[in-house]
Amino acid sequence: MIPTQCLAAKDASGKMMRHTFNRRAVGPADVHIKIKYSGICHSDIHTAKGEWGKKSYPLCVGHEILGRVVAVGADVTKFKVGDLAGVGCFTDSCRKCDECKDGDEQYCSGEGGMHGTYGSQRPEHLHPGGITMGGYSSDIVVDEAYTIKVPEKMDVAAAAPLLCAGITCFSPFRNFGVKEGMTIGIAGLGGLGHMAVKISKAMGATVIGLTRSKGKVETALAMGCDKVIITTNPEEMKGASKSMHMIYDSISAPHSLPDYLALIKNRGTLLVVGGVPEAIEGLTQGQLLARGLNIQGSCIGGIRQTQEMINFCAEHDILSDIELIDAEPEAVDTAWDRCLRSDVKYRFVIDTAATLGRGFEASGEKKGNDD
Amino acid sequence: MIPTQCLAAKDASGKMMRHTFNRRAVGPADVHIKIKYSGICHSDIHTAKGEWGKKSYPLCVGHEILGRVVAVGADVTKFKVGDLAGVGCFTDSCRKCDECKDGDEQYCSGEGGMHGTYGSQRPEHLHPGGITMGGYSSDIVVDEAYTIKVPEKMDVAAAAPLLCAGITCFSPFRNFGVKEGMTIGIAGLGGLGHMAVKISKAMGATVIGLTRSKGKVETALAMGCDKVIITTNPEEMKGASKSMHMIYDSISAPHSLPDYLALIKNRGTLLVVGGVPEAIEGLTQGQLLARGLNIQGSCIGGIRQTQEMINFCAEHDILSDIELIDAEPEAVDTAWDRCLRSDVKYRFVIDTAATLGRGFEASGEKKGNDD
Repeated sequence: MIPTQCLAAKDASGKMMRHTFNRRAVGPADVHIKIKYSGICHSDIHTAKGEWGKKSYPLCVGHEILGRVVAVGADVTKFKVGDLAGVGCFTDSCRKCDECKDGDEQYCSGEGGMHGTYGSQRPEHLHPGGITMGGYSSDIVVDEAYTIKVPEKMDVAAAAPLLCAGITCFSPFRNFGVKEGMTIGIAGLGGLGHMAVKISKAMGATVIGLTRSKGKVETALAMGCDKVIITTNPEEMKGASKSMHMIYDSISAPHSLPDYLALIKNRGTLLVVGGVPEAIEGLTQGQLLARGLNIQGSCIGGIRQTQEMINFCAEHDILSDIELIDAEPEAVDTAWDRCLRSDVKYRFVIDTAATLGRGFEASGEKKGNDD
Repeated sequence: MIPTQCLAAKDASGKMMRHTFNRRAVGPADVHIKIKYSGICHSDIHTAKGEWGKKSYPLCVGHEILGRVVAVGADVTKFKVGDLAGVGCFTDSCRKCDECKDGDEQYCSGEGGMHGTYGSQRPEHLHPGGITMGGYSSDIVVDEAYTIKVPEKMDVAAAAPLLCAGITCFSPFRNFGVKEGMTIGIAGLGGLGHMAVKISKAMGATVIGLTRSKGKVETALAMGCDKVIITTNPEEMKGASKSMHMIYDSISAPHSLPDYLALIKNRGTLLVVGGVPEAIEGLTQGQLLARGLNIQGSCIGGIRQTQEMINFCAEHDILSDIELIDAEPEAVDTAWDRCLRSDVKYRFVIDTAATLGRGFEASGEKKGNDD
């Protein structure tokens, strides 16, 4: 067993506390990673607060994990000690269903689906305590088949968010075949949207930012948008009618899908990645069939595509724009509050390796991470 | 000019009258077809009654047209006099836009879009009177590029509905890649649905009929369904959860899309072809993204695929189930009333060649069609 220090939600308030738990011992196919950086994703907050189902506490979240391999199992071939390694939104799956065989493990249709990196009930022998624990922690043990190789050239702090935010853009773009000659709209310019701009631009597309806020125009252009449309301006919206092959819609609040469909070319796709809980309004079947339009849901991406994504981002110097914070309960609490107000450019990353041990030292507990 | 006899809607009541108008003279690329049979599609009724936009009258509708070529223009290569020929939902398009170049003329993004076979305002030199006139008529003149070759072996009366109902199934099935090993649900077992069963079955799929009505089970099985699910039975619906790769949804009344999405496998598609005018209810983005689901609209199909469809149906002995009626105003009025009550198994076809001339003889007008 590997004693592991972490920051964990103490209860459904989501407030952070210092906590120690055990990871499983390194099995034949496992890699043991000392975590250096862990990104903060909105899903962490939803899950910790029990908004996506009741949870047990303390719960350590985080699924944008980057670190260095410190031990490998006897059968491991992909990693050696010292390698940079990444872990995303899931750490295992059934490996037998059609989805797993196709490399779409995120849609695993086996018993219980993919093994979410945190908050998912799983066997004790894999996850001591019976629940998966995430990346706001000093160590993680993961099967190498669910671990991503990270090129040494990457800035590991700013690369961490790629493991969730990056793949959530890359996978549907690759599946759609985004390439030069295509015009792609990016609706919502937050954590997902800013990655979508960078990745679709690097794939050769003409990229149009779609935002309600005039204040975002300059940064959107700096980020790589070829043009920005203010969605509250009817003239601009009308002028962009039927001009886009696909819109990547990362807006997480209710919004009028027909307004965005109007911007899409015949036979095009509205790709939704925002888990808006309210029902879609004002959409008719006729709007879809008359022009052969498509509303496609997409959820992160599989392991093969995640590896492709990391390699692609390394090659194209794509990183997340981040704010680095200390691994201290108050700092994470504040970051979560700011996330909920969309007050972040564009992703918080926890400096786990350098700062997580501190609090434990002060309280007399074992020092965690000295990579 | 070619004097043409027809049955036409006299006004927005949709009631039929006998009428005579001119087709254009046969141009270099045109074929002149003596119409033998013309299917009755629900779209005929919507259009004639002005439900899809104001129309001018008398208006001759009908876009499931089969007949024999009686003259060809100097540049025609695909047809010779005596050939069987079909005409579907459109008779021209811009030929320059991406959609036309890709063979998706039905989504033509040129000025005014595809030239609908009836009720569409078009230049006088192509359509004397300035409006397109459909297939409830003795003759039609169409560019050979928008005319389908029909194999001699087909029963031409029962093949006529393929030109609209058949291609509306075939095109999305081909685009989706329907094949052996796939399970396809067919929701709504009317004019479109019964064709969808036959065509998906012939493509090798396992076909599941989805209907509210217990009375349809036997005929659905006879039609080719491997199984029928009564959608009002929660047990049967639960048992079929996540079992289908695609559902072909031809239901034309409001219905709960989430109930049907629940039957679709992860990454599957709900294909909507019913122009339900009411807004979709109860659908959330989360339902789509968690399982990578897709709602795809589809509208008929292009010329290349329509030709493929006719060849495929000839090869697999696929025809529509039809009720043949005389080309008399009262008979068509009655058929339309029965269509509106869904009281047809499964498509009315007008016996144009044999019966349209009669009424005109009686009223002293020129005899129309003596093929």
